[in-house]
Amino acid sequence: MRSGRYAGTRMEAAISCNFSCSRPQYALRLMPEPFRHRLRVRWSECDLQGVVFYPNYFAYVDHAITELWREAIGPYAEMRDLGIDMVVAEAGMTYRASARFDDEIDLIATIKRLGTTSMTTELRIERVADGALLAEGRLRHVFVDPDSFEKQAMPERVRSDLGRFAVA
Amino acid sequence: MRSGRYAGTRMEAAISCNFSCSRPQYALRLMPEPFRHRLRVRWSECDLQGVVFYPNYFAYVDHAITELWREAIGPYAEMRDLGIDMVVAEAGMTYRASARFDDEIDLIATIKRLGTTSMTTELRIERVADGALLAEGRLRHVFVDPDSFEKQAMPERVRSDLGRFAVA
Amino acid sequence: MRSGRYAGTRMEAAISCNFSCSRPQYALRLMPEPFRHRLRVRWSECDLQGVVFYPNYFAYVDHAITELWREAIGPYAEMRDLGIDMVVAEAGMTYRASARFDDEIDLIATIKRLGTTSMTTELRIERVADGALLAEGRLRHVFVDPDSFEKQAMPERVRSDLGRFAVA
Amino acid sequence: MRSGRYAGTRMEAAISCNFSCSRPQYALRLMPEPFRHRLRVRWSECDLQGVVFYPNYFAYVDHAITELWREAIGPYAEMRDLGIDMVVAEAGMTYRASARFDDEIDLIATIKRLGTTSMTTELRIERVADGALLAEGRLRHVFVDPDSFEKQAMPERVRSDLGRFAVA
Repeated sequence: MRSGRYAGTRMEAAISCNFSCSRPQYALRLMPEPFRHRLRVRWSECDLQGVVFYPNYFAYVDHAITELWREAIGPYAEMRDLGIDMVVAEAGMTYRASARFDDEIDLIATIKRLGTTSMTTELRIERVADGALLAEGRLRHVFVDPDSFEKQAMPERVRSDLGRFAVA
Repeated sequence: MRSGRYAGTRMEAAISCNFSCSRPQYALRLMPEPFRHRLRVRWSECDLQGVVFYPNYFAYVDHAITELWREAIGPYAEMRDLGIDMVVAEAGMTYRASARFDDEIDLIATIKRLGTTSMTTELRIERVADGALLAEGRLRHVFVDPDSFEKQAMPERVRSDLGRFAVA
Repeated sequence: MRSGRYAGTRMEAAISCNFSCSRPQYALRLMPEPFRHRLRVRWSECDLQGVVFYPNYFAYVDHAITELWREAIGPYAEMRDLGIDMVVAEAGMTYRASARFDDEIDLIATIKRLGTTSMTTELRIERVADGALLAEGRLRHVFVDPDSFEKQAMPERVRSDLGRFAVA
Repeated sequence: MRSGRYAGTRMEAAISCNFSCSRPQYALRLMPEPFRHRLRVRWSECDLQGVVFYPNYFAYVDHAITELWREAIGPYAEMRDLGIDMVVAEAGMTYRASARFDDEIDLIATIKRLGTTSMTTELRIERVADGALLAEGRLRHVFVDPDSFEKQAMPERVRSDLGRFAVA
C-alpha cells in the first residue's frame, strides 16, 4: 500500500503548473547548475514490498537540501548564526519507479523560486545504475525567525548564495 | 529546515483544484462518513525543531489508510487474498501548524475518487486538544497485481466496501 | 540481516545476571505492578524480511516508558518542570520471535532498579494474539540537568511515584 | 529520555564479559583489520534533545554491517544466492557521548566470534572531528534458511571471507 510506481497526470498536472509557468524566459539566462547528491538505500529505509517506503523519499530530499545548503552557504547548523531557520510548508512527490535496498540513487535539486520569505525546490531522484527516473519531488520552505518561528525575509546573503542553484 | 507551518496559496491552489472540481453535485447525495483515526505523537517521530519531522506525517496517513481499510474491508495483510496490492503514485502535504511530542492527533480521511485502477484520498490532520488543523494531505494509490506489480482494476468488492468513506 | 528470532544464552546470561541477583528477597514484598502498553505494528516499522526492523523495538520501548511515565507522574513534556531530563546510557534487546505488520503487541515494563541518578527498566514484548514472547529489552536511563546535561540525583517525588512500577 | 551519554559499569560489565574472556591469546595472532564505514548524521535521525535518537545507532550499525558484508563477500542482496539469510538475535549499545546533527561519524566493526550458526560483531562509533568514542555496540546474528528461517550453519565461503575482519 505504499511504494508507488504509477504516476498519473491528474494531480501532477496541477502540481507542476505554477512552476513551469513561472520560469523566466530571458534568452540569455544560463541554465542553473543542478545540485547532485548521491546516497545508497539502507535496509532501514525499505518496506515489506521490497522497496523504499514512500515517506522516506522525503527524508532523502531533506538530506539533499542540507547538502545543497552546505555547498552553497555552509553547515545548516550555522543557520541560526544567520538569524534564520526554515520550515517546510508544502511537500509533494510523484513516484515513477522504485528504489530498492542497496541501490545507489542520485538526488538532483534545482531551486525553482526564491521568494521574499520562501524557497521552492524541485528534486529528481534517479537510479545510478541505469539513470531511471524514480521520483520527482517538490518542497516549499519558509524562512522564519529561529525563536518565534514567525515568517521573515530571506537574508540577502542567503539569496545570493542560493542563486547558484536557482533558475530564477 | 523541516517541519512546516506556513502553508501558502501557490502550490496548494493547484493541488486542490482537480479534486474540488470533480465533486458530485447531486442534491440528495449524503455526505460520506469521514474515517477518523487517533494517535499520539511519539518521541521518535519528532525532530530538532521540537515538532513532528515532516515526512512522518506521510507515515501517519499511511497508518490511517491501513485502519480505514481494516474498517471497510479487513486487515490489509489479507489484501493479497483479494488478488491485489496497492502502491502510492503521488503524495502531497500542506503544513499549517505543528504537531508536537505527546500531542494527540486525529487523522481524518475521505476518499475523493475511486477510479478504475486508482484511489485518491484526502486527509486532514487535527490536534485533538483544540481542533486546530495541522496538515492536509493527499495520496493517490494504484491497485496492482501482487506479483507482477502491473496495474489492475480494483475488484468490485473493494470498490463497494470503500464506498462508505468515498464522496463519489 | 536484521530481525531476530534466535536468542542465545551467551550474551543474555551475562546481561541478566546483575538484575536477577539484585532482586530483593523479602518474604512479604508484594510483586510490583508491571506497566503494560499495547500498540499495533505499523507498516513503516517493518522491513524486507516481513517483520519489525530490530532497532524499532527500541523505539517501541521508548514509547512504553513515555506512557509509564505518564501513568506514574504525568506527561513527559513536563519533566523539565521537575528540573530534570533523562538520557539513555545503555540499551539491550534479546529477540525471540518476530512481530509482523498489523500484529498487536504488549509492552510490559518493570523498573528493576532506582539508583541515585539512574533507572533500569526491563521490558517484555508479547504478541497479543497468542501471548508469545517476542523480545526482552533492558534500558538504563540517567537523570540529568535539562540544560547542562550533567548527571543529577532523581528528585524524591519522581522516585516515589515510579516506585509503583518498581521491584526495589 | 533518550539519547544517552552516561554509560555505567553495571550492565556493561556483564555484557562485555563473555566477549573479553573468549578472545584468543595466541602470542603471534595478528590483530584483525577492523572494518570502518563513515557517514554523516542526518536531520531525520536526531531528536528533540538535539542528538541522534538512540535506536538509530542500531540502524547505523546495521548499515555498517551491510557495508562490511559488501567488502568481505559482496552485496547483501545476493546473500540468498548463497542459500542463507541472517537475523539479529541480540543487540546491545552503551552510550558514552552524543552524535549531533551533521556530525560525521565512523562505524568501526570487528567480528568477535564466528560460531557454527552465528556471528557476533562489536562496533565502536566515533566522532570524526575529534575521535571521541560515542557508543559501543554488540550484535549477534544467526544464519538461517532464507525460506524457512530455520537456523543453519554458516557456509564455509562466508566464514572464510568474513575471517578478514574477525579476531578469532
